Amino acid sequence: MQSLSRTTALRGLGRVHSTAPCRAVLSRTRLLSPLNVNTATASRASFATQSARCYAASKEVKFTADNYPNVQRDSRFSKLTREDVDHFKSILSSQSSIIDAQDDASELEGFNTDWVRKYRGQSQLVLKPKSAEEVSKILKYCNDRNLAVVPQGGNTGLVGGSVPVFDEIVLSLSAMNSIRSFDEVSGVLVCDAGVILESADSYLRERNHIFPLDLGAKGSCHVGGNVATNAGGLRLLRYGSLHGTVLGVEAVLPDGTILNDLQTLRKNNTGFDLKQIFIGSEGTVGVITGISILCPRRSNAVNTAYFGLESFDHVKRAFTKAKKDLGEILSAFELMDGLTQDLFHKTTGKPYPLADRYPFHVLIETSGSNGEHDSAKLEAFLEEVMGEEIVADGTVAQDETQAQTLWRWREGLPEACAHWGGTYKYDVSIPLNEFYTLIEDCRKLFDEAGLVGGTEDDSKPVIGVVGWGHMGDSNLHLNVPVRWYDKKVENLLEPWVYEWIEKRKGSISAEHGLGFAKRDFVQYSRDETALGIMRRVKNTFDPKGIMNPYKYIPMN
Amino acid sequence: MQSLSRTTALRGLGRVHSTAPCRAVLSRTRLLSPLNVNTATASRASFATQSARCYAASKEVKFTADNYPNVQRDSRFSKLTREDVDHFKSILSSQSSIIDAQDDASELEGFNTDWVRKYRGQSQLVLKPKSAEEVSKILKYCNDRNLAVVPQGGNTGLVGGSVPVFDEIVLSLSAMNSIRSFDEVSGVLVCDAGVILESADSYLRERNHIFPLDLGAKGSCHVGGNVATNAGGLRLLRYGSLHGTVLGVEAVLPDGTILNDLQTLRKNNTGFDLKQIFIGSEGTVGVITGISILCPRRSNAVNTAYFGLESFDHVKRAFTKAKKDLGEILSAFELMDGLTQDLFHKTTGKPYPLADRYPFHVLIETSGSNGEHDSAKLEAFLEEVMGEEIVADGTVAQDETQAQTLWRWREGLPEACAHWGGTYKYDVSIPLNEFYTLIEDCRKLFDEAGLVGGTEDDSKPVIGVVGWGHMGDSNLHLNVPVRWYDKKVENLLEPWVYEWIEKRKGSISAEHGLGFAKRDFVQYSRDETALGIMRRVKNTFDPKGIMNPYKYIPMN
Repeated sequence: MQSLSRTTALRGLGRVHSTAPCRAVLSRTRLLSPLNVNTATASRASFATQSARCYAASKEVKFTADNYPNVQRDSRFSKLTREDVDHFKSILSSQSSIIDAQDDASELEGFNTDWVRKYRGQSQLVLKPKSAEEVSKILKYCNDRNLAVVPQGGNTGLVGGSVPVFDEIVLSLSAMNSIRSFDEVSGVLVCDAGVILESADSYLRERNHIFPLDLGAKGSCHVGGNVATNAGGLRLLRYGSLHGTVLGVEAVLPDGTILNDLQTLRKNNTGFDLKQIFIGSEGTVGVITGISILCPRRSNAVNTAYFGLESFDHVKRAFTKAKKDLGEILSAFELMDGLTQDLFHKTTGKPYPLADRYPFHVLIETSGSNGEHDSAKLEAFLEEVMGEEIVADGTVAQDETQAQTLWRWREGLPEACAHWGGTYKYDVSIPLNEFYTLIEDCRKLFDEAGLVGGTEDDSKPVIGVVGWGHMGDSNLHLNVPVRWYDKKVENLLEPWVYEWIEKRKGSISAEHGLGFAKRDFVQYSRDETALGIMRRVKNTFDPKGIMNPYKYIPMN
Repeated sequence: MQSLSRTTALRGLGRVHSTAPCRAVLSRTRLLSPLNVNTATASRASFATQSARCYAASKEVKFTADNYPNVQRDSRFSKLTREDVDHFKSILSSQSSIIDAQDDASELEGFNTDWVRKYRGQSQLVLKPKSAEEVSKILKYCNDRNLAVVPQGGNTGLVGGSVPVFDEIVLSLSAMNSIRSFDEVSGVLVCDAGVILESADSYLRERNHIFPLDLGAKGSCHVGGNVATNAGGLRLLRYGSLHGTVLGVEAVLPDGTILNDLQTLRKNNTGFDLKQIFIGSEGTVGVITGISILCPRRSNAVNTAYFGLESFDHVKRAFTKAKKDLGEILSAFELMDGLTQDLFHKTTGKPYPLADRYPFHVLIETSGSNGEHDSAKLEAFLEEVMGEEIVADGTVAQDETQAQTLWRWREGLPEACAHWGGTYKYDVSIPLNEFYTLIEDCRKLFDEAGLVGGTEDDSKPVIGVVGWGHMGDSNLHLNVPVRWYDKKVENLLEPWVYEWIEKRKGSISAEHGLGFAKRDFVQYSRDETALGIMRRVKNTFDPKGIMNPYKYIPMN
């Protein structure tokens, strides 16, 4: 087998250079051994927690109610009274389960403000039940009293779905964070909804398995929130969506009914698959308190590579080759445009992984059961993409630390974008042919409007227009990092982005969900018939509408 | 790498013998080349069609209404009139879309009688609409008139779900059988519900893809019926359930509303994932008229092996080894007990694949992108299972024809069991530890009752108690082949089987669904709370209850 060139490791990373005459260079040294990384995927550091701390110090977030005066508080809902608070104290087993604004209003800020720092509610009460039974008592009371409720997991959502809009009670799952069981033979994990994703993954790694979902906010987000929002993330390409991997849920309906549907069987065709209604329902039909999920075995071998490419056409060709050559071991194909890497470099000071900067970068991960075979497959792939000059430059991680370093250039992007103050975020699905055109068209729009100041000119709101995403799932993240949230920017983006997507029959929310941010734009991806049926489903489960109101879908 | 012995091919199959002293024999010849089968999975012949013909000649099936006198016709439903038939004639585009008992009653028999020949309805009318619009017109009229309807696909179900119980109108999807589109880049197929599974798979194979589902009835069953019943089948181990692979459905609600939710995006978090409600709903909330589904690429290399094993403990050990050694390329691990192979041998006259007969047989399939790597993995696996004497004897298919031959010993079992007259069929999920105990316990039960006559003694109803299944999914098929359906047999089996399953927290229907056969046993796998929520869902979509009545879940 022909082998590839490898120059000296620079900044701790083995590097793969494609220089003319390519074939000659390719045959010079063998790449196989540095690829042979027989370690499991790096347990990549979480940014969400750090970031939450980091931005807590920045300027105050405006109340959603003031920022969106067209949204009115629903008068059907009661206002919280002292009697209500006393009642909650009487039904919860621990006083630490209640955070009451009367005691310390500042303690509620973190629960009222969303991670993007764009939405801020005015809840006066946070409840942290410790069991499904406590959740049931809370919801039954709220339903009887017409008190609106926002279920909250790790509060890392990007569409304002997990914070109150007005004075809804926050029902936090953070005190329900136990692993209930794990079966090493079947790979089925049963746990509380409030278990942090990274904790679940670490627990599984020690038992030779992994959680079938991975995403940047893993250090803060809850698995229950992941299921409630049908999170997609980095492993969907390989392990599929939560609609396939979640085997059961325990959920509490607004009337206090506890649905104990924590099945651990891979197959069970005994009536409606009720859990599916909760997956991706964003807290609008009940509160998920526990999940059971099928977890894949941890791979013996994981390889991570990072490439620079000259055009999006090159990216598409690399993707086709990766699917062909890497087949069943391809576990990630992530696209990051050049500007994203510049912003990460600027905000972190970290040296670029490659000597030059390219218009596009791609991060590829393989995971499989046989390190030797995987390396051979990756080698064949590299040989093709470098031989045909599809990839301009690249580097392959030699160990877990290097893999972690490379992954940061992808996972650190939300924080890099938020660095100057905030980000307008759009998470869309687009057929691959026009995948990156959205970013180019959006850039033109902003350039023409004269709103872009780059990282230097602080008189203008917009830093730039950038894109990254899960190319393997046709899922692009359009991000417009800004110095301040500005109606001029918002008005330029909306409904422009949604109309652009609608024309391509894409999805206006691929994986982030609708929340508050996209409720009024859902019709760009779903028609009135579908919305009508959704309303019937919502009304069936939550006839009084107390669950996460003002969000998800317009109810009239 | 140490290689394995291979004796001369017997009856066209390459054979792998494990004889003492095992290690010595193992190293004698190389197995690698015969394993290197670089062809796609055999397009295995369908048995369902043949069988339907074969059994059409056997004795008449009793009316369900007579056989189950405790089930009464629901008086809310109108009786079909000539005006109704005239109306249907007026709204359907073609006269061939109507089969009217007044014209030729015998033509309705195939639609009234189920594949197992256990259930027989008395419908007087079959409608075969050609479009979702025609389905809409039919259902709207039926809903207004309170006429009950049974949607019917290929009518290959095993629980009596697709035939009428009384005089329900049969709505057959057989005239909606077009492929609508296929995108080779994304692998997304959009097609009518009435496309036959094997036709869809053949169409995809020509385009380098496969349907993510495969099952014995593929030559007759419809993809719409597969989705409506959440069929599991042979590829679930590798590609997951239809809840994960189906991307969208087009469905008609009882009131005539057409839900056009034929999405082709892998990710779309814009509100409730409505298609999930239809997947596995068995025609009780509407009629699926089209589907979109994510189809995997056809593998470059497929290997098929067939083993004989001395005990179920050996099978479990082989399964653990297969998961470890074959990892991401394992695509089937099917268990068949010794008696199943005897019945297949007896009914078909085909020579056994192995020289000896074993208490257990296992069929393993691998599929992957690199034939050389897959062969090496399979070789390592064979070396372990034969070296450790986990497997007593085995054979590996050398080409597609041999693979087909081996698969028949698994896929031909339903027909082999039905040979003497009928089969009591139970399709259950059981934790692996007690997987085969159900068959052993059931055998004891029948032996003690003195009802077993084997294949020779035709004075007794029961041929034997046999088991096979998808070991990889914990899914066992308990089959009791009989000469005639006999209440003594049924009373021995039910509720005994269900109580046995309930004690192990298994599922009383892993993949076949509930239909008519299991409606009254669903409580063994789902609790009253879950059933209560299911009833609310059913009533939301089908308030008049006209869709596939008397089946699925008890409505009161």
